Amino acid sequence: MRLASIPGKKRRARRKEKARRLAVGAPPGTLEADPQAAPTVISVVAVGGGESLRQTGVTVAAALALREAWPLVWIDCSGLADIEAIRAIGAAFGLHPLALEDVLDTAQRPKCEVQADHAFVVMRMLDREGGSEQLSLFFGEGFVLTFQERRGDSFEPVRQRIAKGAPRLLAGHADYLAYALIDAVIDAYFPVVDAQIARIEQLEDDILAGVDGDQVHDLHGLRRELLGLKRWLRPTRDALGVILRLDRPWLRAETRVYFTDVQDHADQLIDTNETYRDTASGLIDLHMTLSAAKTSEVINLLTIISTIFIPLGFLAGLWGMNFNPEISEWNMPLTQHPYGYPIALAFMVALALGLLVYFRKRRWI
Amino acid sequence: MRLASIPGKKRRARRKEKARRLAVGAPPGTLEADPQAAPTVISVVAVGGGESLRQTGVTVAAALALREAWPLVWIDCSGLADIEAIRAIGAAFGLHPLALEDVLDTAQRPKCEVQADHAFVVMRMLDREGGSEQLSLFFGEGFVLTFQERRGDSFEPVRQRIAKGAPRLLAGHADYLAYALIDAVIDAYFPVVDAQIARIEQLEDDILAGVDGDQVHDLHGLRRELLGLKRWLRPTRDALGVILRLDRPWLRAETRVYFTDVQDHADQLIDTNETYRDTASGLIDLHMTLSAAKTSEVINLLTIISTIFIPLGFLAGLWGMNFNPEISEWNMPLTQHPYGYPIALAFMVALALGLLVYFRKRRWI
Amino acid sequence: MRLASIPGKKRRARRKEKARRLAVGAPPGTLEADPQAAPTVISVVAVGGGESLRQTGVTVAAALALREAWPLVWIDCSGLADIEAIRAIGAAFGLHPLALEDVLDTAQRPKCEVQADHAFVVMRMLDREGGSEQLSLFFGEGFVLTFQERRGDSFEPVRQRIAKGAPRLLAGHADYLAYALIDAVIDAYFPVVDAQIARIEQLEDDILAGVDGDQVHDLHGLRRELLGLKRWLRPTRDALGVILRLDRPWLRAETRVYFTDVQDHADQLIDTNETYRDTASGLIDLHMTLSAAKTSEVINLLTIISTIFIPLGFLAGLWGMNFNPEISEWNMPLTQHPYGYPIALAFMVALALGLLVYFRKRRWI
Amino acid sequence: MRLASIPGKKRRARRKEKARRLAVGAPPGTLEADPQAAPTVISVVAVGGGESLRQTGVTVAAALALREAWPLVWIDCSGLADIEAIRAIGAAFGLHPLALEDVLDTAQRPKCEVQADHAFVVMRMLDREGGSEQLSLFFGEGFVLTFQERRGDSFEPVRQRIAKGAPRLLAGHADYLAYALIDAVIDAYFPVVDAQIARIEQLEDDILAGVDGDQVHDLHGLRRELLGLKRWLRPTRDALGVILRLDRPWLRAETRVYFTDVQDHADQLIDTNETYRDTASGLIDLHMTLSAAKTSEVINLLTIISTIFIPLGFLAGLWGMNFNPEISEWNMPLTQHPYGYPIALAFMVALALGLLVYFRKRRWI
Amino acid sequence: MRLASIPGKKRRARRKEKARRLAVGAPPGTLEADPQAAPTVISVVAVGGGESLRQTGVTVAAALALREAWPLVWIDCSGLADIEAIRAIGAAFGLHPLALEDVLDTAQRPKCEVQADHAFVVMRMLDREGGSEQLSLFFGEGFVLTFQERRGDSFEPVRQRIAKGAPRLLAGHADYLAYALIDAVIDAYFPVVDAQIARIEQLEDDILAGVDGDQVHDLHGLRRELLGLKRWLRPTRDALGVILRLDRPWLRAETRVYFTDVQDHADQLIDTNETYRDTASGLIDLHMTLSAAKTSEVINLLTIISTIFIPLGFLAGLWGMNFNPEISEWNMPLTQHPYGYPIALAFMVALALGLLVYFRKRRWI
Repeated sequence: MRLASIPGKKRRARRKEKARRLAVGAPPGTLEADPQAAPTVISVVAVGGGESLRQTGVTVAAALALREAWPLVWIDCSGLADIEAIRAIGAAFGLHPLALEDVLDTAQRPKCEVQADHAFVVMRMLDREGGSEQLSLFFGEGFVLTFQERRGDSFEPVRQRIAKGAPRLLAGHADYLAYALIDAVIDAYFPVVDAQIARIEQLEDDILAGVDGDQVHDLHGLRRELLGLKRWLRPTRDALGVILRLDRPWLRAETRVYFTDVQDHADQLIDTNETYRDTASGLIDLHMTLSAAKTSEVINLLTIISTIFIPLGFLAGLWGMNFNPEISEWNMPLTQHPYGYPIALAFMVALALGLLVYFRKRRWI
Repeated sequence: MRLASIPGKKRRARRKEKARRLAVGAPPGTLEADPQAAPTVISVVAVGGGESLRQTGVTVAAALALREAWPLVWIDCSGLADIEAIRAIGAAFGLHPLALEDVLDTAQRPKCEVQADHAFVVMRMLDREGGSEQLSLFFGEGFVLTFQERRGDSFEPVRQRIAKGAPRLLAGHADYLAYALIDAVIDAYFPVVDAQIARIEQLEDDILAGVDGDQVHDLHGLRRELLGLKRWLRPTRDALGVILRLDRPWLRAETRVYFTDVQDHADQLIDTNETYRDTASGLIDLHMTLSAAKTSEVINLLTIISTIFIPLGFLAGLWGMNFNPEISEWNMPLTQHPYGYPIALAFMVALALGLLVYFRKRRWI
Repeated sequence: MRLASIPGKKRRARRKEKARRLAVGAPPGTLEADPQAAPTVISVVAVGGGESLRQTGVTVAAALALREAWPLVWIDCSGLADIEAIRAIGAAFGLHPLALEDVLDTAQRPKCEVQADHAFVVMRMLDREGGSEQLSLFFGEGFVLTFQERRGDSFEPVRQRIAKGAPRLLAGHADYLAYALIDAVIDAYFPVVDAQIARIEQLEDDILAGVDGDQVHDLHGLRRELLGLKRWLRPTRDALGVILRLDRPWLRAETRVYFTDVQDHADQLIDTNETYRDTASGLIDLHMTLSAAKTSEVINLLTIISTIFIPLGFLAGLWGMNFNPEISEWNMPLTQHPYGYPIALAFMVALALGLLVYFRKRRWI
Repeated sequence: MRLASIPGKKRRARRKEKARRLAVGAPPGTLEADPQAAPTVISVVAVGGGESLRQTGVTVAAALALREAWPLVWIDCSGLADIEAIRAIGAAFGLHPLALEDVLDTAQRPKCEVQADHAFVVMRMLDREGGSEQLSLFFGEGFVLTFQERRGDSFEPVRQRIAKGAPRLLAGHADYLAYALIDAVIDAYFPVVDAQIARIEQLEDDILAGVDGDQVHDLHGLRRELLGLKRWLRPTRDALGVILRLDRPWLRAETRVYFTDVQDHADQLIDTNETYRDTASGLIDLHMTLSAAKTSEVINLLTIISTIFIPLGFLAGLWGMNFNPEISEWNMPLTQHPYGYPIALAFMVALALGLLVYFRKRRWI
Repeated sequence: MRLASIPGKKRRARRKEKARRLAVGAPPGTLEADPQAAPTVISVVAVGGGESLRQTGVTVAAALALREAWPLVWIDCSGLADIEAIRAIGAAFGLHPLALEDVLDTAQRPKCEVQADHAFVVMRMLDREGGSEQLSLFFGEGFVLTFQERRGDSFEPVRQRIAKGAPRLLAGHADYLAYALIDAVIDAYFPVVDAQIARIEQLEDDILAGVDGDQVHDLHGLRRELLGLKRWLRPTRDALGVILRLDRPWLRAETRVYFTDVQDHADQLIDTNETYRDTASGLIDLHMTLSAAKTSEVINLLTIISTIFIPLGFLAGLWGMNFNPEISEWNMPLTQHPYGYPIALAFMVALALGLLVYFRKRRWI
């Protein structure tokens, strides 16, 4: 799972494509589909007066038609291949061309932009496999629009609550539905973050227990993931702050407390992210320190063995020299002594013991 | 004591549970007890007009009944298993469902939320064994509510002062009682922080004295604890700032100076925390530097011994070669000399001394 | 590509020249051409009412003449050698002498300065070869002026769109044209940044795969480039913020949303820059850690081999000593034993095996 | 001099005492003396109309009596053992119980609290031996109160100026006297900071000159001291800012410029502190780098010696083998050659020279 | 050039002197000359109505006399020994005693203080030799005063422009002249900064090219210089910000744009300073990494040589043992074989080749 860099290649490909289009003179705000975009499936949920209606795989026209009859419609586009449908929805709800361009360019930074009659929120939606997709959400009086890169999203709990007739959702207020969807997106960050924490704590235990392994590789990967998440979380928090400071009739005071709650969750995620990035850095340092300690211990052994046996080896070599003892008594004297050998051995043992005592004194053993 | 990560596993378990509930459509604000929550014990303290009354293990109804007769009631719920009781208290005092959800979800970030008629403060309460639990405190005109995860808390000094008839507490103002409780929670941080400081200073003394041991492990653990405390202290300070900026009739101007005092204490804790995190990092660096210095010293010895004895060993080997001296005078000449052996020895000693002088000159000895 | 330091020498040369001029008494705001400046080529694009006219290599007078007939003229000066022309343009549009001096001194920090009737924006324009040049852009009611160091720029997409008759550009509003030009400059940062990301990810893959090579050199170079880009991006973002807060009749409310979009892009670039600077630092650390691990492994081998064979060598040396076994039985006893040699070998093998077992136990093998 | 940690043990002792008192129900604001507090000596200086009177070792009553007759009295309490006296002074000047508690709890963070008729400033007063004590200063219309932990303070210059009849001090304005005292406290930081700088620069010279020694220990100690000072300086500066923003009749506009001057001094101290903390960190890094370089040099020598002599030793060993040359001509051929020995020696010398050339080429020598 | 620490000793000396004076009761604001101050030389430039007059070495009275006749006088004091003259100027222009004290105490932090009728700016003036002196500049309606520590300054360009009759300077506005002088001071920072950049880039080239040398010493010195400059640049920028926010009749709106320009230059210097401090830190890291890589390479060679030749040496030693082959066939078997020697050699060569293959496989060669 290389969370942060997943969109890397794709983003670059898109950018090249966009550059090409610009080079031939297409203005900003020109909509063009990413050739790799998933096919668009439109589903619509209409709620109001305690009732709800859900249709999947409908046409844009069918979705828009429900707008007349119901107090609140939520139109969801999964897959961004059908430019015409997206353009039609944009036209029906008065979305700005630049906003639609942001919907299609799925490497946006999370943000919230406010127009007179609707707000436009961009977030990053995580799935459990570590992938992520861009969610573009518009909400205003009587409508919520969501655009996502592919099918599969974090909205299932909301759909379940509508199906079960949750009174607040069926009251038909766009602001509360938008809150519920955004809350569901943020809630889906927690299992991902918890998995990261579990991995860090596992790595910490391994490092402290001295388990061999690729902990540094893993820590590096985790730090990149945490860095990637931070990059999405901070602007998401700022976007939620923009919503909270909104002064529009279609954002009711009583919904504000819910958005405060979501912002609290985002703060909690940012706090956790920061703490564990710090922890990961601390673990990398700890790993280095422990490795250095181990190397140092190895060098200690090398030094002890070398310092004892190299001089001994020299002594053995000394007595192995071929000076001729028969020419004079000065040559190789001990070798012709009846107890020469035991004396030499005793001298060597004494030297070795002396060195050992010295090492113990200096606390190298 | 792994302070920061204690709630880790539990939090993840709770989160999974919550995700499951959401997945089946429960709306935010639905109260459901953590299966591992401790049983709820309700105790109530009523004060006013210089008198006080304390009852433990009462029912919600009994606790609420006191509200009529006394100017100020403090209801404390220890243990969060009894959802019904908590819901009943919430209903009686007009608490927001999201706030009650926060009471039950004990992994909240410290915060202060303000409603028209009461304030809601979340803090982290430490005990002396290094554990921690969430404290949720509500206060408004005539009431203080506290919810904690289990029995045993930092409030004993306050209860003692009420029992002894402290005039300010018996005057029956909710804001002063809330201050006294919050102050007691903050005061309980000091012994924990002081213990951390004592451990760091002990480790510092050990490192500077060169005592062997696992100081790096301990420093790593301490840094994590300090990081964990910081994570609670900073938002706690912000929450106190929110209280200080409050403009509500039930927060009297004269109580503000007391909250300023608590905030000073929080600032002091944050300062200390930061200073000692810095110190811990500095100690890790110092430990690495001193270890490197020791390794370097060991390598020095290895080099000195090797540099002296490996060449000497080579010389001994040279004179141990088996060239036949009888074939020509060019072979092994010194070996057939009457003073060959002493000459060779003298040469070796001279070489060794020369190298020692060289090492001393380069300051390696 | 040494992006950040490219203008280093040139800047110093210019500065010396300026110092010389100042030393002889020229006031600030005195225009003097850089002797190395490229020759000036003036081109003009006039738009309005859905029509457009483009002329290249015209005189200043010709360019200014178009101002009467068209709602909007865009005069571009490529190359800054012709001081007279620049002064004439400055006089015609009421530019401040200090602004003109900034146009010529091409080591400006990106900024936006606002006058009563026009805004002055300084940006850094990148080309695909990693070079960069200063862009000075003025815009006010009915005119856009651009000054660049040399021919070749990021504006080609805008020129194409004008040529193809893009309605918004041909409407003749200076603010929208200024936006389009600034947007094109920012868009040209993305391929450069994407190339940096691709290089970092390549280096990351190489380091993780253990590929040999100069990754540290490359990472150092990349970090300098990223640092250099940051130095341009941050003030550019601030300059865009100044434009967004402008309250002038010649900046229409509807154009503001476009500038917000450009600012989003700048934020994205800054985010990416920061994330990848962090990543580069992390990679340098990772590389060091992995190198240290490799060295540590090498030292391990050295220690194992030395620890096994140095004592064995000593033993062999022991039995190679020339004590005379004929003088007494105490000298070299085993050497005169019929199975002396195999016993000695067996002892050596046993010692080696023992050490290997010890090493495996300590997990050094 | 372990500046920062001096109050460590004492603080913890006090805290335990306070916890004990709280546990038995004493309210915040209850005054109780530290058992180790120094005995209280009250001295009073009365000034006004160009005259001054100084009395030492007076009773509280005597000190307060002067208040009637003189425009300005400065009462100084050195030593905090006499709770009754402190309480009496507090009552006479209307000090808040929490403020008096802060006076006694001598581990306060520097701060400034403002009441309607006086300001309360807490600072840390340094003495030349590296010790420090808490100074609590109150000033309002007609009075300045100072409380310090023990005799001996930074106020001597002010007392001298009063004794010599300095007109501004004898004019009898409390704000100017408060300024003079605070200025004297800040001025006493400079010699301490200068001594730290001198030590850092000495250590820097030593490290750069390669002097052996415990520089890392010293640098670590210095960094802790600098960290400790920072912890006092930053809040002191903030406290001065609070005074400067005061809008009270007893703080005259003309005195404000003096407080600005003190704040400048605090800024200077903070700047210096920050710069030298940076420098100390840089020196620790430098020391590590230079140590690593030295170790690296040692390892170089080890490698050169080993790489030359270990192969040579092997060659000598080769010719020292006991293969029987009489059995066949294949065994030990050169040993039976008349010039075998010189040939072997020449080969060895050539090998050694070749390796030396190789090393020089790789720049290891 | 040890830029940052140049004033160190001098400052400490001054401080001691000041402490002595304070100890004997001199009030703040008492002027006393530094015994080492350079003799004061007063020069005056009077401008207005397009004319100018310059006199050097005049008395204070003569300088002040010009004030009547000319719209603008600029009085410059080089050297701060003549306290009387400085006091006289201060009295004539109504300068605050604390400001005059700051003029004499030449270790001030750059700042700007505003009075009703004049502004007081303190800056640090660099000279080309790396020295620096304090510049104190006052300007108000009709006058500019500059005080500097010694002769020789950055003002020569301004004097030249006045001499050549620059119209803006001869118009006689104090604010423009003050701008011109401040601008000249800031401009003099650029060559110093450029020299630092050139040195860093030289060091970078050397490090990347692997040139031997004291780069770490130099980088450390450079980092200290950059740190020292930062310490002056940041408060200088803040001081310029204070001037820009000034609302006084003697600071005309049209001059404000010039001060904005100076502030831009200060921003540029700060940016450059920050970027190159980062770069210097990066280079220190790079140097360490490259050194570690080199050491690692050396250790590799040591390991390869040792791992090959130590076992070979052991084998040679094995065949050099003196077991008696005549006693039994078990002793030293190969040594009595006709091809024993070549077989042994072949075995050794095979072992060495095997190890080489192993090393190449592990990529250590």
